[in-house]
Amino acid sequence: MPKKVDRHERRTLIADALMRVAARQGMEAVSLRHVANEAGVSPGMVQHYFRTKDEMMAFAMTVVRERNQARVTEAISRLGEQPAPRALLRAMITAVLPLTEESRIDGRVALAFLAYTAVRPDAAAGIGADTQQMLGFMAGLLPGPDRDGRAAGLLALMEGLGVYLLGGHYTAEQALAALDAQLDIVFAASDLAEAR
Amino acid sequence: MPKKVDRHERRTLIADALMRVAARQGMEAVSLRHVANEAGVSPGMVQHYFRTKDEMMAFAMTVVRERNQARVTEAISRLGEQPAPRALLRAMITAVLPLTEESRIDGRVALAFLAYTAVRPDAAAGIGADTQQMLGFMAGLLPGPDRDGRAAGLLALMEGLGVYLLGGHYTAEQALAALDAQLDIVFAASDLAEAR
Repeated sequence: MPKKVDRHERRTLIADALMRVAARQGMEAVSLRHVANEAGVSPGMVQHYFRTKDEMMAFAMTVVRERNQARVTEAISRLGEQPAPRALLRAMITAVLPLTEESRIDGRVALAFLAYTAVRPDAAAGIGADTQQMLGFMAGLLPGPDRDGRAAGLLALMEGLGVYLLGGHYTAEQALAALDAQLDIVFAASDLAEAR
Repeated sequence: MPKKVDRHERRTLIADALMRVAARQGMEAVSLRHVANEAGVSPGMVQHYFRTKDEMMAFAMTVVRERNQARVTEAISRLGEQPAPRALLRAMITAVLPLTEESRIDGRVALAFLAYTAVRPDAAAGIGADTQQMLGFMAGLLPGPDRDGRAAGLLALMEGLGVYLLGGHYTAEQALAALDAQLDIVFAASDLAEAR
C-alpha cells in the first residue's frame, strides 16, 4: 500500500516552488508546467493541489502573509515589555519592508499578487479583511485626532516604500529616513494638538 | 509607391493596444501575438517597432507617465495663479491617483510595470531619474525641517494609495481621507516647529 501523503506538506512544497519561480522570473512565468518543473513533480500533481492559477496565487500570498506575521512577531518580541507605540510601529513596519534578501523575495511575490489582483478582483477575496485589521491595529497605536486617516496613510506609506525598494527607486537609507520622518510628524502633530 | 508610414503614429497605435491588453488581462497576457491581435496588425509588425517585451513595457510606461503629466498640468491650471503649496500638492497627487476609469487603466499598467521591473531591474532604467525629480519638486513645496524625508514619505504614500485603490483595499473616500490627514500633519508639524 502506498504511504500516506501529507497533503499540507506537498502543498507547501509546491507553493515554495511557485514562490521561487515568481520571485525569479515574475508572475507571467507562473504556469502549472513551470511550477511542476521547479518542484520536481508532474503538472498533474500541481493541478491536484491547485486547480487554477488563482488558487496558486492566493496560497502563495497566504504563505507571504504568514512569513510577514512571523517577522513582525519576532521584531516585537525583541522590544521587551511594554514598548512605546512609536517603537512598536517602527519595528512592525521595518520587519515587513523588503530590506533583506528573504523579505525581498516575499515582497516580489506580494507585488506580483497585487498586479494580478488589480485586473482580477475575485482573486483578492480575503485580503481586504487583512487590511482592515491592520488599519485598526495601527489606529490604536497612533495619537489622535483622526487616527483612522493617519493609520490609512501610514499603511499606504509602508506599501509605497516596499514598492520603491523593490523597484530600486529608493535606497534602504532613503526608505528608513522617510519612515522616521513620518513617525516624527505623526507624533509631533499630537504634541501640537495637546499643546493647544 | 506606398504611402509613407508615420512611425510615431503606428508605434502609438501598437502601444495603445498593449495598454488595453495589460489593463484588461494583466501583464502575463502581454505577448507579441496578443498585442498584434488587439492592434489589428501582424506580429511581425509589432516586432518591427518593439524588438523585445522590455521595449514594449518601457514604451507603455512612457505613455502612462506622459498622460499623468498632462493630468497634473491640467489640475494645476485649474488652481489659478500662485496656489498655496498644500493645494498644489493635493491637486498633483489626486490627479495621479486611480480615481477615474481612465486613470485606473493607466494605474494597472504602472502597477504591472512595477511588478515586471522588480524582477528585471534593467527594464526600469530611466524611472529612477523621474522619481528623484518628483522628490525634488515635492521637497520644494513642503515646510521644513527634513524636507527630503517628508517628500520621500509623501511620494511613497501616494504610490501606496494608488496600489490600494487598484486592489480595492481602500475606497476613494478612504484614500482621500488618508491624503488629507497626511497633508494636515505635514503642515501642522511645521506650525509646531515655527511655534518653538
